[in-house]
Amino acid sequence: MRNLKFTVRYDGTDFFGWQTQPGFRTVQETLEAAISSITQEDRVRVNCSGRTDSGVHAYGQVCNFYSDTRLEPATLVKAVNAKLPEDVAVLDGEVMGQAFDANKDAIAKRYRYVINDSRIPDPFLRRYAYQPRRQVDHEVMHRAAQALRGRHDFRCFETEWPNRLTSIRTIQDIAVTRHDQCVWIEVQADGFLYNMVRAIAGTLYHIGRGYWPESKMREVLDGQDRREAGPTAPAHGLVMLWVRYG
Amino acid sequence: MRNLKFTVRYDGTDFFGWQTQPGFRTVQETLEAAISSITQEDRVRVNCSGRTDSGVHAYGQVCNFYSDTRLEPATLVKAVNAKLPEDVAVLDGEVMGQAFDANKDAIAKRYRYVINDSRIPDPFLRRYAYQPRRQVDHEVMHRAAQALRGRHDFRCFETEWPNRLTSIRTIQDIAVTRHDQCVWIEVQADGFLYNMVRAIAGTLYHIGRGYWPESKMREVLDGQDRREAGPTAPAHGLVMLWVRYG
Repeated sequence: MRNLKFTVRYDGTDFFGWQTQPGFRTVQETLEAAISSITQEDRVRVNCSGRTDSGVHAYGQVCNFYSDTRLEPATLVKAVNAKLPEDVAVLDGEVMGQAFDANKDAIAKRYRYVINDSRIPDPFLRRYAYQPRRQVDHEVMHRAAQALRGRHDFRCFETEWPNRLTSIRTIQDIAVTRHDQCVWIEVQADGFLYNMVRAIAGTLYHIGRGYWPESKMREVLDGQDRREAGPTAPAHGLVMLWVRYG
Repeated sequence: MRNLKFTVRYDGTDFFGWQTQPGFRTVQETLEAAISSITQEDRVRVNCSGRTDSGVHAYGQVCNFYSDTRLEPATLVKAVNAKLPEDVAVLDGEVMGQAFDANKDAIAKRYRYVINDSRIPDPFLRRYAYQPRRQVDHEVMHRAAQALRGRHDFRCFETEWPNRLTSIRTIQDIAVTRHDQCVWIEVQADGFLYNMVRAIAGTLYHIGRGYWPESKMREVLDGQDRREAGPTAPAHGLVMLWVRYG
């Protein structure tokens, strides 16, 4: 059997997240069905770098799966894309060593959270940005965010379910930048806790709109209490940008 | 009565175009209903710069209407936006002279047609770009397009219904540029015939993919026969960018 790696892009709007759930349309199930229909294998099981929630998007999600197919990766990608619906596409395929695991071998992942802070929501961004109709100060947000750089216990940004063995992670980069009416919060880490980026985004939003001072971010981090942080920002503003391997 | 000018943005995906048609969801009807609910006037009739077809988008469509409302334009815009669905928004409102007509007074309009020529369609562009899965040469397209500059009889790009008094228009600017995997065909003119930009885009697409030579564009223009031009490109790749007044 070959171990294949796929890079996958999807618009999360009409999916109930990545992970298969009976009765719901998910990316995993959609992808597995398309692969199976090409390889003629009953049980294709796709393992991803990190399960995205309902409504979250991905430009470059990565996953791996085992298959007996003899098709070359490029041929397989083309055939699978022909079976996939328009809101998901395989960008690239590659044969990996038998041990490669898209989840465990990731050394860095980067997410972007988009806030359009114009007073008038943009019809073209309604599926891809949080549009609170309220202005934020992206410079204050950027400065506040720097408190999160490095290795910390991030349990203050973890939704409790599912519990993890450890809530220590390393944020390698975090930056808040403005692009016309959109503010991008980009967070890169060696791994993420459940809802971590959305909780960071919700906290930064409260700081950016002046509800909390810049110093609040360090207090939240030090307090280690999820109730001290901001709300979990809406899913549709979040996109997984890419995953890096060693 | 005051004559009000609105600049309107809409995602055309879920509209059957601009113009009211009984039984269909249109931008005009949606906008008129929202304005009426604020001004409490039964008959608000909105006149636009150019009716967009089903599926065509607008960043800056312009329209005008008469109303007895005493609300300031900014207040009216905010109130109307609160009534509008997420796929349409009023960007700006202004009180004009009684004679202003959003259609007849336009001196320039600019449209963009987007082609994503990647072999892999992008899930995020499926509503906003034509994705033929075939590469095009944007430089050849740009050179071919220059034949259309200036004042000409453009009947070769006019869908016959509805007939116009004249099919002479002036193309003030036409440019084909590449933006990563997307090719933008931008056309600016003093006015457009029915389906004109989409027929130009379909012709340029045939030239860009090598099916026709660069010289074909001038032949089509000189031939004055719609059947000589390329197919009408799909609606969802087209967006009205802006309208200019004297």
